[in-house]
Amino acid sequence: MNPATFQPKKIVAAVLACGILAAVPAYAQFAKPEKAVEYRQSAFVIMGTSFARLGAMVQGKAPFDAKAALENAEIVAMMSHLPWQAFGPGTDLPNSHAKPAIWKEMDKFKADANKLQEMTPKLVAAAKTGKLDDIKVVFGETAKTCKSCHDSFREEL
Amino acid sequence: MNPATFQPKKIVAAVLACGILAAVPAYAQFAKPEKAVEYRQSAFVIMGTSFARLGAMVQGKAPFDAKAALENAEIVAMMSHLPWQAFGPGTDLPNSHAKPAIWKEMDKFKADANKLQEMTPKLVAAAKTGKLDDIKVVFGETAKTCKSCHDSFREEL
Repeated sequence: MNPATFQPKKIVAAVLACGILAAVPAYAQFAKPEKAVEYRQSAFVIMGTSFARLGAMVQGKAPFDAKAALENAEIVAMMSHLPWQAFGPGTDLPNSHAKPAIWKEMDKFKADANKLQEMTPKLVAAAKTGKLDDIKVVFGETAKTCKSCHDSFREEL
Repeated sequence: MNPATFQPKKIVAAVLACGILAAVPAYAQFAKPEKAVEYRQSAFVIMGTSFARLGAMVQGKAPFDAKAALENAEIVAMMSHLPWQAFGPGTDLPNSHAKPAIWKEMDKFKADANKLQEMTPKLVAAAKTGKLDDIKVVFGETAKTCKSCHDSFREEL
């Protein structure tokens, strides 16, 4: 790339001056790539913790608590919207769980994220019934969307 | 402590056998103290990011987007309930932002957490009005609860 033609600081200044910050891709909301990585990992930690707590109930490893199940389902649903904004260009840092495939196959990655986001309201709806059997079914389907995406895009460190 | 009288594995086994896991203090939901620290830090990262995005609108550094403001207020509100469960005994690890005062003054720490949790529904309500001036007032009050607690209990690293 010719540095004479790529002037990110000028572009940012222009965007700010025009007051069209909202038109900037969402990942640009992070001050630096490390902050984007920290954000997406945080969202996955919160989502994963609540999903595991639901899983413990589904698998009979923890007693079923309808209120806690709903709270955890709602946390999973909210978190399912957050990490993806933090996978923008330049955030493919080493020593993260993110495989390079994410940036090579961004359309597939986003489609996988959408699948999760389509499932999580169903998980909340199931939790609202207060019936563990209903939750089990949707939990299993949601877990498949997690696994499918992890198989393609998540590196074990 | 006499190891002959302190047998955590036996206690956990008994609790599990009795099916009263829900009666165990919430911090015990973490497999090890490091996981509790990771969880609470993650909740603060998500909360802080959304609060900063609201702050940017309130301070005129980002254009006001009523939909984004409400989304971020809702994220802050949900996150305001999460970190505190992860400050249980034994989670005062070194190299974290948590001051030892948290465990010495747990009642005050919990009271500070409650103050935040009382403010965040007001922040959501203000965001629902779609009026930046309303949000500004509650944002300022909420920021004071953050600062007050940070002054007492948060270490800069």
